[in-house]
Amino acid sequence: MGNTFGHVFRITTWGESHGGGVGVVVDGCPPGLELSEADLQPDLDRRRPGQSSITTPRKESDTVQILSGVFEGRTLGTPISMMVRNEDFRSEAYNEMSVKFRPSHADYTYHAKYGHRAWPGGGRTSARETIGRVAAGAIAKKLLRQRWGVEVLACVTQVKHLSVTVDPETVSSEAIESNIVRCPDAVAAAKMVELIEEHRSAGDSVGGIVMGVLRGVPVGWGEPVFDRLEADLGKAMMSLPASKGFDIGSGFAGVTLTGREHNDAFRAEAGKVRTVTNRSGGVQGGISNGETIYFRVAFKPVATVMHEQDTVDVQYANTTLKGRGRHDPCVLPRAVPMVEAMSALVLLDHAMRHEAQCGHR
Amino acid sequence: MGNTFGHVFRITTWGESHGGGVGVVVDGCPPGLELSEADLQPDLDRRRPGQSSITTPRKESDTVQILSGVFEGRTLGTPISMMVRNEDFRSEAYNEMSVKFRPSHADYTYHAKYGHRAWPGGGRTSARETIGRVAAGAIAKKLLRQRWGVEVLACVTQVKHLSVTVDPETVSSEAIESNIVRCPDAVAAAKMVELIEEHRSAGDSVGGIVMGVLRGVPVGWGEPVFDRLEADLGKAMMSLPASKGFDIGSGFAGVTLTGREHNDAFRAEAGKVRTVTNRSGGVQGGISNGETIYFRVAFKPVATVMHEQDTVDVQYANTTLKGRGRHDPCVLPRAVPMVEAMSALVLLDHAMRHEAQCGHR
Amino acid sequence: MGNTFGHVFRITTWGESHGGGVGVVVDGCPPGLELSEADLQPDLDRRRPGQSSITTPRKESDTVQILSGVFEGRTLGTPISMMVRNEDFRSEAYNEMSVKFRPSHADYTYHAKYGHRAWPGGGRTSARETIGRVAAGAIAKKLLRQRWGVEVLACVTQVKHLSVTVDPETVSSEAIESNIVRCPDAVAAAKMVELIEEHRSAGDSVGGIVMGVLRGVPVGWGEPVFDRLEADLGKAMMSLPASKGFDIGSGFAGVTLTGREHNDAFRAEAGKVRTVTNRSGGVQGGISNGETIYFRVAFKPVATVMHEQDTVDVQYANTTLKGRGRHDPCVLPRAVPMVEAMSALVLLDHAMRHEAQCGHR
Amino acid sequence: MGNTFGHVFRITTWGESHGGGVGVVVDGCPPGLELSEADLQPDLDRRRPGQSSITTPRKESDTVQILSGVFEGRTLGTPISMMVRNEDFRSEAYNEMSVKFRPSHADYTYHAKYGHRAWPGGGRTSARETIGRVAAGAIAKKLLRQRWGVEVLACVTQVKHLSVTVDPETVSSEAIESNIVRCPDAVAAAKMVELIEEHRSAGDSVGGIVMGVLRGVPVGWGEPVFDRLEADLGKAMMSLPASKGFDIGSGFAGVTLTGREHNDAFRAEAGKVRTVTNRSGGVQGGISNGETIYFRVAFKPVATVMHEQDTVDVQYANTTLKGRGRHDPCVLPRAVPMVEAMSALVLLDHAMRHEAQCGHR
Repeated sequence: MGNTFGHVFRITTWGESHGGGVGVVVDGCPPGLELSEADLQPDLDRRRPGQSSITTPRKESDTVQILSGVFEGRTLGTPISMMVRNEDFRSEAYNEMSVKFRPSHADYTYHAKYGHRAWPGGGRTSARETIGRVAAGAIAKKLLRQRWGVEVLACVTQVKHLSVTVDPETVSSEAIESNIVRCPDAVAAAKMVELIEEHRSAGDSVGGIVMGVLRGVPVGWGEPVFDRLEADLGKAMMSLPASKGFDIGSGFAGVTLTGREHNDAFRAEAGKVRTVTNRSGGVQGGISNGETIYFRVAFKPVATVMHEQDTVDVQYANTTLKGRGRHDPCVLPRAVPMVEAMSALVLLDHAMRHEAQCGHR
Repeated sequence: MGNTFGHVFRITTWGESHGGGVGVVVDGCPPGLELSEADLQPDLDRRRPGQSSITTPRKESDTVQILSGVFEGRTLGTPISMMVRNEDFRSEAYNEMSVKFRPSHADYTYHAKYGHRAWPGGGRTSARETIGRVAAGAIAKKLLRQRWGVEVLACVTQVKHLSVTVDPETVSSEAIESNIVRCPDAVAAAKMVELIEEHRSAGDSVGGIVMGVLRGVPVGWGEPVFDRLEADLGKAMMSLPASKGFDIGSGFAGVTLTGREHNDAFRAEAGKVRTVTNRSGGVQGGISNGETIYFRVAFKPVATVMHEQDTVDVQYANTTLKGRGRHDPCVLPRAVPMVEAMSALVLLDHAMRHEAQCGHR
Repeated sequence: MGNTFGHVFRITTWGESHGGGVGVVVDGCPPGLELSEADLQPDLDRRRPGQSSITTPRKESDTVQILSGVFEGRTLGTPISMMVRNEDFRSEAYNEMSVKFRPSHADYTYHAKYGHRAWPGGGRTSARETIGRVAAGAIAKKLLRQRWGVEVLACVTQVKHLSVTVDPETVSSEAIESNIVRCPDAVAAAKMVELIEEHRSAGDSVGGIVMGVLRGVPVGWGEPVFDRLEADLGKAMMSLPASKGFDIGSGFAGVTLTGREHNDAFRAEAGKVRTVTNRSGGVQGGISNGETIYFRVAFKPVATVMHEQDTVDVQYANTTLKGRGRHDPCVLPRAVPMVEAMSALVLLDHAMRHEAQCGHR
Repeated sequence: MGNTFGHVFRITTWGESHGGGVGVVVDGCPPGLELSEADLQPDLDRRRPGQSSITTPRKESDTVQILSGVFEGRTLGTPISMMVRNEDFRSEAYNEMSVKFRPSHADYTYHAKYGHRAWPGGGRTSARETIGRVAAGAIAKKLLRQRWGVEVLACVTQVKHLSVTVDPETVSSEAIESNIVRCPDAVAAAKMVELIEEHRSAGDSVGGIVMGVLRGVPVGWGEPVFDRLEADLGKAMMSLPASKGFDIGSGFAGVTLTGREHNDAFRAEAGKVRTVTNRSGGVQGGISNGETIYFRVAFKPVATVMHEQDTVDVQYANTTLKGRGRHDPCVLPRAVPMVEAMSALVLLDHAMRHEAQCGHR
């Protein structure tokens, strides 16, 4: 259960790390949208392992195929099924995984919950599962841009203790994509790359923070009381592998301010209502207020390290396990397109729900 | 839309601050549970305004009534409808709210989204909406305790810059409830009360952090990939009024550790698999691992302050607005039962979903 | 579970025959609709027992109260909670029901499923449960009429063996409401009343058929493949108490025709596509085609009869039971507003889903 | 929208008649079930065109492939993705379909709803869509049989005016599968085959009735009030292509009986509660009562006939269209596995929902 996301624009992902492949079915996509694999592949390439010296060297082309829902280059309004075949074969390096639980991975919890586990490559818990999200998110991003002029961005703002301040109003896709760590500050980016490479050499890994930025979102998206925009964004981000935290606007830092300091004064500007500051992060009472939405997502360091660690085997006996073979020292650059994809899925679903209830006003 | 939470144990809340009342319908409650209003009122009293010198002085008894789903003292398996009548009358102090948007409230976004707004007391955006959540949560807490021995707790760990460290393994309900701020550290609690009272005197408000603690959760609850336990907890917390952030386990602080430092080694202990540390926060791969689940929720300072603030009126003209009448300097003590309620709703829904799919194994 | 209906315009009903009352929460209603209890009461009065000599003499005023979601006479877009208090007290006539299962009622299945049963008046299985549906349906009917000019009607076309042919294109609300049996053919109606009264005198009951008619539905409502318009109408009707069958357009009678005989030829007419015949019943491939939608619902005879019948008690011992007290010889006249309500709920939900996905074209 | 069915055991189908293929994703399947393509192919072969002289001669092997959710021969509890590649190429015979609407098909409604239509082979409206249902249904049937001993059957009971009476208590799979029309009465079956062949020779088509039979269903499955077992069965059947009606137990025929005649007396038998007759059709108050569930589904004659018919083109001008090429004179034999599949999906979903809420009693 739990493999479906969204109410009106709704995706269902499937697939394990090894086996036939991974994919997604998108239901509820508006008809008439121009769509081909060329719209999806760029984001999949940004998500792909092996794309740079600071990610896992696992090599898969992740070539997506659209199997349904598109006819003569435009969407039909019927389900869009997309698939990426698995190419990577089952490595010898994995064999120990069949009998030992990797620390801080999901091996043990899957074993305990289901009693039967696809251990090669982590099975369903592999980051390959996010391929379907990113493919579906690319469709959502295109619709948001075409219909509402909404821009969806994400970038790395912290790697371990190296942190930069990024202005959500001005950060650009060009600056973000100008380096392999996807941090828009070039000077900081260079230091981050260096830091990641150091830890890779040491067989260790690092975590950090990704910021999401949603610009041009109209006033009025978001459903009180449970499906607040920030609640659905929070869920979307916390559903990403390795994420441990989410905050929006002033977030955790805002708790040290008083109400007088924290409040965003309203100002009328050219017949529009704006806020002078944006500690709300573009959402008030669960509904977008027309300001830029920005939030942070904390990612823990990758759990696989090239060192002997204490663990337990499937007989529940104590043992040790050492990561072998390919090593991903930092998930952050690849998490950027994931954060964008999940943001777009949340926004588009809310846009369509808003149209359904309030579109006739 | 968006007023329903949960898949199998599922609640729907309704009601505005003024008008007939507020309430909730609970669908999917197992039959045969002993239940009466006496099971619900204690948590509602902990949520109630006017309960102490550091909350809003608004006086409402919040007496709950069970209208259906219970017969001769036990649940029927049919929907449980619960209601609290509104008692507080429309104050003169509110009249300005009909034509001006309160800064950092949801007045403007509701106005823009729906075109028609229940301005007295904030209508649906009032914290009174959480009455239904707390009543439903009390049922969930009782079921979790009776059937699985699960203990659901929450407490205040930070007020503005005053912060304490609380051990999720040992914190007790008694310590939490021993003071009006609901911080288990008595010394810190006294300082927190003082700090809140200072800001109340200054017509200002403060925010802070509430920690949630879920003890005794069995291994195996949580649904990959979108409905991970931490994703649903994150959504639940981010749907609470005034919440701005959520993290679980090591959370935002964990990003400065390396993988070697962060990983929770497994150890077999009396035939059970345990972790030596608990940076995962009791959840791995979206599924509970049997360790204590703990997380933090950031609450911004209350938006209503007793000072003139810049704002805009319903004609979109610039103006000012000053908070009048009753003043709530700090939402945190009342947020504690809300965090518990939402936690319990998430857990019970996941427990039942787990039984449905994996119960026969 | 299972007490919620609809995806976007969504209702949740609650309540037992005895106890606090019965009610419904409507989520997703568009804002700005003028609404008061006066919009709801007429359909509730058409559903009410005791309205004529051929229905149950149970006397309840069924006065509805709107508790939320409406402010200054217009809907807010927030949940609309509506309630009818239970007035009728627990009759002595019911006492036998606490220990014996009434034949062809749901007493035994509820007992077996839930282990605990609200036996007075049948509890949740009472037709009082439909009060919430009819109240919510009245809102849906008003929206359908105002926004799309859609007309929702139902009428009785058969009582036991007395059957009439009714033309769905021309049948009028006036003709239907001109007699207590709600059959638009006055001559047949008189015979039907006579037939029902005969069976009431004999302590027996009769069933029959209600036809639903939906006129003015635009082309394009309905979602392939599972949520076809006829599938959702079928579910809606089969969810009404005592219904045993549903067919649409040519229905069961159509199976004796050949394809050539059955097909509805298309004809262009003033720039619109029409069908020459309407054996499809206004729906093709699950989607409305602009023609009148009409369908039939079979209702079995009421199970409570004033005669001794073989049954079993809660100890699973054989015994007999005789209906006592108030006797409802025919559910059909009261089923008419129920069929209308469920039809309107299905249509409005589909209208809003269509807007969400295809509204921008 | 609308391509997902079920709440806990939940399927999502995708695919058009031409293009990459058709498939289904099954979410919520219990882990540990032995499963391979060999479990699915027999029902797919029963659904396949070209299987006998009385179905469409379209030739496709419909070979299913499991892409995920199964590891080392057993289900993982993760989504099971299944696919059948499209083999049949786009025939010249179809070209006219790109500009003309076939009468009593969904060409016009899809065109009007979505504005863009996959005309080859009917696109999404093709019966190929049911491949995913049948594959998923085969899994559900296996689980129902293994865990609860439930037997799911369907058979043809009427072709045009040729009707037989089939006893749901004794009808066997062997008898049904002994002839190509899937009617358990061999004498009637021979006449039915003859009748179908006559109409095929005449370029015409026939409809009829399929009966569904669910034996061994335990007491207690079904959720009041909207998700009654008969309501979900009704929806499931009305969602099949060409279905026009559904009734259960006494159904439409039952409306001519009086209450005394219609009621099913209860009798205790070896500590179990049974009914003497079964006009309820195994369901009372929406919940299974332990008796055999049986129902009827009406299928209209296939719309494609080899004769010139009046219709309209995409410019909304009058024209004519004549069916060409492959001709399916009767959908009934192939509808049998579809009815079984949808029945199994409904039952298993309800079984799991029942476990979730009432499993602990």
